[in-house]
Order: sequence, then C-alpha cells, then structure tokens
Amino acid sequence: MTLTPTAQARQWLDDWNQALRSDQPARAADLFEDNGFWRDLVAFTWNLKTAEGSDQLRAMIDATVASTAPSDWALDGEATETDGVIEAWITFATRLGHGEGHLRLRDGKAWTLLTTLKELRDYPEPRGANRPKGARHGVFKDRRSWLEERQAEQAELGYSRQPYCVIIGGGQGGIGLAARLRQLNVPTIVVEKNPRPGDSWRNRYKSLCLHDPVWYDHLPYLPFPDNWPVFSPKDKIGDWLEMYTRIMEINYWGSSECTGARYDEQAGEWRVTVRRDGDTVTLRPKQLVLATGMSGMPNVPDIPGMDSFEGEQHHSSQHPGGEGYAGKRCVVLGANNSAHDICAALWEHGADVTMVQRSSTHVIKSATLMDLVLGPLYSEEAVANGVTTERADLTFASMPYRVMPEFHIPVYRQVAERDADFYQRLRDAGFMLDFGEDGSGLFMKYLRRGSGYYIDVGACDLVANGDIKLRSGVGIEQINPRSVTLTDGSELPADLIVYATGFGSMNGWAARIISQEVADKVGKCWGMGSGTTKDPGPWEGELRNMWKPTAQQGLWFHGGNLHQSRFYSRFLALQLKARMEGLETPVYGRQDVHHLA
Amino acid sequence: MTLTPTAQARQWLDDWNQALRSDQPARAADLFEDNGFWRDLVAFTWNLKTAEGSDQLRAMIDATVASTAPSDWALDGEATETDGVIEAWITFATRLGHGEGHLRLRDGKAWTLLTTLKELRDYPEPRGANRPKGARHGVFKDRRSWLEERQAEQAELGYSRQPYCVIIGGGQGGIGLAARLRQLNVPTIVVEKNPRPGDSWRNRYKSLCLHDPVWYDHLPYLPFPDNWPVFSPKDKIGDWLEMYTRIMEINYWGSSECTGARYDEQAGEWRVTVRRDGDTVTLRPKQLVLATGMSGMPNVPDIPGMDSFEGEQHHSSQHPGGEGYAGKRCVVLGANNSAHDICAALWEHGADVTMVQRSSTHVIKSATLMDLVLGPLYSEEAVANGVTTERADLTFASMPYRVMPEFHIPVYRQVAERDADFYQRLRDAGFMLDFGEDGSGLFMKYLRRGSGYYIDVGACDLVANGDIKLRSGVGIEQINPRSVTLTDGSELPADLIVYATGFGSMNGWAARIISQEVADKVGKCWGMGSGTTKDPGPWEGELRNMWKPTAQQGLWFHGGNLHQSRFYSRFLALQLKARMEGLETPVYGRQDVHHLA
Repeated sequence: MTLTPTAQARQWLDDWNQALRSDQPARAADLFEDNGFWRDLVAFTWNLKTAEGSDQLRAMIDATVASTAPSDWALDGEATETDGVIEAWITFATRLGHGEGHLRLRDGKAWTLLTTLKELRDYPEPRGANRPKGARHGVFKDRRSWLEERQAEQAELGYSRQPYCVIIGGGQGGIGLAARLRQLNVPTIVVEKNPRPGDSWRNRYKSLCLHDPVWYDHLPYLPFPDNWPVFSPKDKIGDWLEMYTRIMEINYWGSSECTGARYDEQAGEWRVTVRRDGDTVTLRPKQLVLATGMSGMPNVPDIPGMDSFEGEQHHSSQHPGGEGYAGKRCVVLGANNSAHDICAALWEHGADVTMVQRSSTHVIKSATLMDLVLGPLYSEEAVANGVTTERADLTFASMPYRVMPEFHIPVYRQVAERDADFYQRLRDAGFMLDFGEDGSGLFMKYLRRGSGYYIDVGACDLVANGDIKLRSGVGIEQINPRSVTLTDGSELPADLIVYATGFGSMNGWAARIISQEVADKVGKCWGMGSGTTKDPGPWEGELRNMWKPTAQQGLWFHGGNLHQSRFYSRFLALQLKARMEGLETPVYGRQDVHHLA
Repeated sequence: MTLTPTAQARQWLDDWNQALRSDQPARAADLFEDNGFWRDLVAFTWNLKTAEGSDQLRAMIDATVASTAPSDWALDGEATETDGVIEAWITFATRLGHGEGHLRLRDGKAWTLLTTLKELRDYPEPRGANRPKGARHGVFKDRRSWLEERQAEQAELGYSRQPYCVIIGGGQGGIGLAARLRQLNVPTIVVEKNPRPGDSWRNRYKSLCLHDPVWYDHLPYLPFPDNWPVFSPKDKIGDWLEMYTRIMEINYWGSSECTGARYDEQAGEWRVTVRRDGDTVTLRPKQLVLATGMSGMPNVPDIPGMDSFEGEQHHSSQHPGGEGYAGKRCVVLGANNSAHDICAALWEHGADVTMVQRSSTHVIKSATLMDLVLGPLYSEEAVANGVTTERADLTFASMPYRVMPEFHIPVYRQVAERDADFYQRLRDAGFMLDFGEDGSGLFMKYLRRGSGYYIDVGACDLVANGDIKLRSGVGIEQINPRSVTLTDGSELPADLIVYATGFGSMNGWAARIISQEVADKVGKCWGMGSGTTKDPGPWEGELRNMWKPTAQQGLWFHGGNLHQSRFYSRFLALQLKARMEGLETPVYGRQDVHHLA
C-alpha cells in the first residue's frame, strides 16, 4: 500500500525536522534529490538564497540551522500529486519568527523546498484580530486625536526626529514597501520628485494601460475591488496609488528630490540631502532604499549627428504621447514594449511611423499571456479556485530560477502553436521574433534582462499590415538634420526620433545619488547570471542585489513589476524591521560582484 | 426517520414553488405559520415590504406572483437547525432578475421568509469575471483615454447632459449609493455643501470616533483593509470617503448647495437648483434622492431667554470640540451619544461640565455591545467563521421588525447582568437608565426613533464619579444672560450651552428643499409604528419612507448607519436602475401616511 501524498509529505517533514535536530544536521541534505533545491527567503539566511545540489544544501544547512532553530514543521492543508510530483504547503517556526513555504517531492525526495519568513514573532502586524482599536476608550486629559498625531508626525519626521529608513522613489515599489514598513512601525520617509503619488504613471504617454492584469497587480493589504478593470489605465492606477498612500498613512514627500547621499561609517548612518519646497533637508536614516524603478537610468544611444538634428528627439520615458504628431514623420528606435505602444499611439494620431528593429523581440498576445501563462495563478478562475494572491505569489516563488525555464518552455510551445498564424504574419512583414534563447518566453526574459519583449495589445497588426513601417535588422548609423541614415545605408526622413532603447542597471541610480565607487562596489542589479544576452554568468541563483543585503551597508534595492513589489517588499520590510529592533540577522551567502553594470 | 434540516428545507421550497405555480398561488400562504412573515426587498413587491400573518401573506402572493414569475428556487449550502428552528439560505430567479434570501422553518412551516433582489438579469454588474477590461486592445484612430473620458463626463454631466439621478447629500449614504449607481451605469450627480467628501465627519468634534466597529462599517465594493482600526477616527473615515469617491469615479459636486427643487409633473422630472462655484445650475433629473442624514434637521428647543444669553450656545451638530473651553462652565442639554461625547471632551479639556438629563437613556458599554450583540455577525470571529459582510447583512435583514425584539430582549438581559455593577454606579449617581420600553435595547431604539441611547466609550465613568456633573429629571426652564434656570427652579451658571437635543424627521429636508406640501405628502420618515415613544402607531412593518417609493413620484430617502447605507443602497439602486431602463416596477403595498413628521 502506498502512502497518500499527504502522508508522504508529512513523513518527509518529520525526517527533515529530525535530521535538522540531530548532531549532524547537514545530513538533512540527503533528503533532497542530488540536484534538489532549497530556496530561502529571509527565514534561515537573512538573504534571498537558493542552494542547488547536495554540496550547497549541506553548506546552507550547516551555516544556518543552529542560529535559526527551526521547529513546528507542519503541513498546511492536504498535499496533492500531479505527474509523480507531490506538492505541499508547509508552515514552521524559527527562533525569531513564523514561516511558510512549499515542498515538491519526487520518489520520496525533495526536488524543491521553499522557506519564507512570514512574520517576526515579537512584532506581529496589527491586522485582523490584532488590528488597532482606533478610538482610545476612556477619558484622558492629554488626548490627541488621530489627526493631531498624524500632523505631528508629518511635522517632526525628518526634522526633529529622524526616520529609520528613507526610500528614494515614490512609485508603486516605494509606496508598497513604505506601507509594509508603516505596518511594522519602522519610521520611514518616501522621497519622490513628482508632486503626487501616481504621477510616475500619469506622466507617461496617454494610451498607456498596465500590461499585467489586475489579479497580478494588487498592492499589499488593500486589494483592488472586484470592479477594477483588468488592465488599469495609467491615470486610474495613478489615482489608486495616491489614495493608497493616504490611506496607508505613508510619510510621502512629493516634489522632493534627493540630490545626494553618502554613508557615514562612523555614525553608521546615511546623510541624504533632499530638496523639498525650496529648502535643503538632510535626512539621517540608518537604511536607504533605492526604489527608483527597476529599470535604472534611461539608455540613450550616442549616435553621430544627434546634435545636428532639427526635429524633436527624446527617450521613450520622455515621450508625451501621440497627440501633436499628426502628419509628422516619426522614427522609433527599438522594438520592445514601449516602442510598440508609442508607434501605435503615433499612428492612431495620424503620424507617419517607422519602427527600427535592431534585434529580435519576443512577442506574446495579451489574451494568450492571460490564458496560458498567467491564468492558472492570476485570473478570475484562479480566484474562484481558491488561489488567493498570497498563494499564487508563493507558488511562483517556489520555482527556483534554475528550473523555472523547465516550467515555462512547454507553455511557450503551446503559445507558439495557438498563435501560429499571428507569428507567421509578423515574420512575413520582416519582423524578427524570438521566444528567448532557450524558448522560455516572457518571464525569463524579464527576469534575466528586463527587456526584449512586447505584450501585444494591438500594435502587431499595424506592423503586420504595414501601417507601422518596419525596418528590421538595422540600426541608426547617423543622424542628419532632417533624417536618419540606417546601418544599411538607407535614409529615413524624420521629424521626430524616439529612443525606445531601454534602461541601464539600477546601480546607475546609486552612481548618480551616492557615488560611482558605491555603484561599482554593489555592482549590477537584476538578472541571475543565466549566460544569455544582457545577463552574463556566472550563475547566481537569485536576482542580483534585489530586496536583499548588498555589498554596501545600509543600501538596498527595491523594484520590479507590481507582483514582485508586492511579494518581495515583505522580505525587505522584515529585514529592515529586524535590524531596527537589533535582532541578530546573520547573512548567509552574500553574493560576489561579477559585473559593474 | 426524520429528514435532515436540508431535506426539510428543500421540501418546503419545492412545495412553495409548486404552490406558486398552481392556479391558486395564494394557497402558498398555508406553508407559513399562522403568524408567519414574508419580508421582501424589491424582488416581488418593488418595495420593502413585510407581510405578517395569513391574510397579508395571501394578499401579497396574489398581487405579486404573476408579474414576478419566480423560478429556480434552490438552497444555497446546507440548512442548519438550532433549538427547533431550521435555517436555510436560498436563491431564486424572477422574470427580471436573480434573488437571494433566507428561510426559517418551525415544525415544517415557515416562520420567516426573506426574499431580496440581487441583480437585474439584463444589467449584470461589471464585477469579477464581468469586470471592465480597462484597456481597449487594438488600435483606434478615435481613441480617448480613461482620463479623457472621465474629464469629458465631468464637464458635460449636469450641463450639456442631464443626470438620471441627483443625490442631495454627499456623506457616507450618498457616496455609497452613488457608487452602486455608477456600477449600474445610472448617470448620477451627488450634491454636497462641504468642499470634500468626508467633510461631514471632519467637521465634527475632535475626539469623535465611529461607535460602530469596522466589520459593521464597510462600504459597497471596497471593504476596509484588515489593518483598519476597529473604531475609525473621524478624520480617517473622512479620508477613506474622499478616496472612495475618487476611486469609484463618482460625480461629486463639492462646495455645492441645493437651494431648491420642484417636481415638474408635465415633464416627469425635477428642477433642482444648485449653487456651484458661485453659479446657479439647474439640474433636471428624473429621480431625486435625499441623503441628507437620517437625522434630518437639528432640533433646537425654543427656551425663554435664549436671545439674552451672553455666552456661547449651539446645537451639538455645530459643536467644535472641547478645546478652548478650559475653565468654562458648560451646560449640555441632553444625555444621549452626542451629549456624552461632548461632555467627556469638554472635561478632558478642563471645562466645568454639567449634563442635563431630561428623560432616561439606554446605555451600553462599547465592549459589551461588541461581544454580546454585534459579535455573532460583525467581528473578527464572525469573519473567521465565514460570516461575510454580505451574509451578516442578510441575516440581520431576515428578522422581520415585528419579531426583532424577541431576538434582542434576551441578549439585553445578558447585557444587564454582565454589567450590573456599572449600571448600579450610574443609577447611584442619579442617572436615569432604560433598556427601551420593552427591554429590547439599542437597535430597536435606533430603528424606532433613532435616538435615546449612549454607547459608552468612557464618559459614563465621569458621570458616575461626578467629574461630569449630572442634573437628571429636569429640563431648562429659562435662559439668563450668564446662567440657566432648571425646571426644578435651581440655577446653573453657564458660559456655554450645548443643545444635544437631537434631530427632526428626514422629511424636514424635503420641506426645506422642496416644499412643506411635499414634506407633508410623504410624511414622517424612519420608525415603524411601534407605538413606543417618538414612534407612534399604527404598525407599519418597515421603516417609513426609507429606500423605497414614497408618496411623491421620483422622491426617495436614503440614510442610516454605515450598515444600513451599505445594505439598503443596493435595493434603492436597483429600483432606480429598473426605472431608468423602463422595466415594469409595479409597487405593492405602498404605505399610507399617518404622521407628518
């Protein structure tokens, strides 16, 4: 008689628990497949870390178990089995907190184990049964109202009282992290150059809508209501962020620009200078988070003759939208998301548009992405099946980056099949297509390099039928006063040039705000060393520098799409809270720096 | 062998269905106890109506079943049995919509049946799987962004395009109703004299917090997050309402005052004049909703000598809070919620305070209210037990007003027992206490007269220990330049007099805005004819004029606490939507007017 999946998972957890408590805990690594994985998010390693294979597993167990003192391993619900893989949700405790995670077993051995820190034991979040009372019942001669407390905090923080944490960048990432820090009672200021929360969306081109669907986009604590559109228009998400910032009582300094920051080793704190309301304020936080956009600084290519151009030229991030370009000859350099959106909007407003595609692009139709790729975790059906956002996020996190392509490649084969005609039409128009170097599609490209794809919401038809003119396999060789010369020697007349040429690594922001020295010390952000284009090896196992300790004390990077910002902000917030409270946070396996940017 | 509760409930539903489909549907009344109840909210009657006893049941069935054509009666989940009462959730369909409800059986007969209209078949709400897409995928030469659409709507509505509905009053009631109407695509403008949504809370005294807990207070569609305080501070709920209004895309005219309205019988529409931004705008909606506060206009007593008073005097609704009254001699006339809150805040700020209690007050400690009264339906435990807000609201609605006291009296006996010492201390201080004329406590007092109680959050201790001085069983006979003379002939020096003397009926607003004639035509609002103080008979079975057709075509009243506003706004919105779409909405049993105010 074979054991039920639940019994097998329970047996494994018992063995794991016993092995960890034995005098040779590293032997617990034998409970994994030879190429098994243990991904830990802050629970054991105070890091985001994936151990791959027996040697790394043994090392990580040896280094972390004694100080973590894990206990109370238990299943959360019943385990399931699909194609010989048993999956189970688990919970556990550590010396400092409560954790949750996920387990995959094959033939009785662990293929993947995920452990995540959910909450610090001594600092539970004020939610649910633990929510604040709001009213102070009783009578008090010194009563201050909620409003007075808030106003006092806003007046004091950053002036007579220093924040523990400063977040540079008040987009979705900075806002979501600040909400979590507020919940954890970590005094925090968000510094944002735009006046209002949401302006970083509002300021973009008019037709922009989120390319990710609503189920993927929730912020922490306050999910979108069920009448929220699938794809948020940019101004609507801007309003939501503004409202969220207010409701979450975030100390948000709008119209404020960080003009510099340096770490004072002696004092163990930052000196962050901020221009606010015409004054210069120096903030002295212990922790500094750059949440300036996962994409870093705009890449503007250096092309001979740029200075001589008599038309208008700007980077895609500065593009105001299609209005005002009717009848103009527009050249858009690039063929990824922004390039397609901008080309389509220009065409909609009556411009003459040419897209210059230098290298191949991964394209996936929005509806197909929803149905085949996101649907199982993030959709109305998923919600109906009981897949909460929390569960979906953990499921996604349970796949180590190394094996993630295995999960994705078959899905993208389906994608290619379903939309074969669509892809053929694009190829016939000369468009250079790819599905990633290993056929693993959108997410892997996003995780490896953060670029190289377009989620089609309509522009591909314009390319296929020639409404958007396409020049592919070429770049711009030279810019002339009223035209561009392509690398094949041909010339395109131009009134507008848009450089949809992407962004640099996030540590470019560190260079600008702190110093080149610190930027080089922490090195490249994002990507995991896959050895594919724009993501050089060696293999790192986790995204570089994101949401975890960097080589610069007190410096952190936060960013990514709404899903990542929501999920990883929890771990970043817990790391910051633990430090503020003086808990021991020994970091296991801090990464080496292999690339400067 | 007895049938399971579920089988019995199913059997009853089958019998009910068959009887309704027979050629003598009124015989379905025989399936009820002789004194059984059928409460219908808009599904059958296009009214809020409770039939009580066989005669009324037969009449209501006879009048409504043919036009409603109900079908698809089914149980929703398993029925339960407690103390001989079987309870079941039900669903059904009508010619025009989908319904849900609740059934109580005793010995095989229906004790209570609730039927409610949930949705109009041809006008499903854009939620969940039916939510809007947000982005218009594809390419369009005439594309307008979400922001442009919103801006155009705001510029046009009320000027070049008329709203179908105008709501006077932009407090929680008007806002929640407007959100529902927006969802149903009913063009609506909310007219509010304060600048910003939430100001009607912000403008009140500083220490004010909601007396109802968060689980009771959710607005439609967008529940409070789980970190929201149990008792919202007034400025925080103000912020929430402001953000909610924006997020729900409500057309909210702040700083706008309705200066008059009259119904144009010929045109079948209202002429509503509004002062907005210094201009007078005439709106011509088909439907006019007064959501000006369930309490109507402030009651200020007419006391000899008022004009001669040299100190400060105002109604409780105008009271600015305790600051600035340190050392002042303050007389507060009244002993209900506002009186207690104001007395406590004055004392906290160092004033010398006397409460003048004219008649007895029902008092319940906030914690006791939460534990014994609200807890089973609205609490963290209820949420954990799967009692969603929707379920809690329906459960509450399933109790016909006639039998509601039966449910409440035993609970308030427990209350009296639990807090016996507390009540004794109050009595010892001379405070006049009651539990309602039949011992049915807070809610019944609220439903009958909307006054006469205090939810204790601390002030009672001050009364009991004499910090707040108490004069009970007396009123103010005469006001002198620097004192008041009580009805027992004694005199109290006074620098401030606060009239915490309550509010009139909501039709006072109709008198002010429309005409006394229309106010008299629709008659008194609120209360159900219980024959208790301030709620004279005859028995009406439902609250007078609230959320249902009135004697004045196109005039509606909306209000109540957050729970009622949330729940009943659905039925009011469906009634308005049905009329806009030209559906047949035969109103059964419109009430007679027995009282003018």
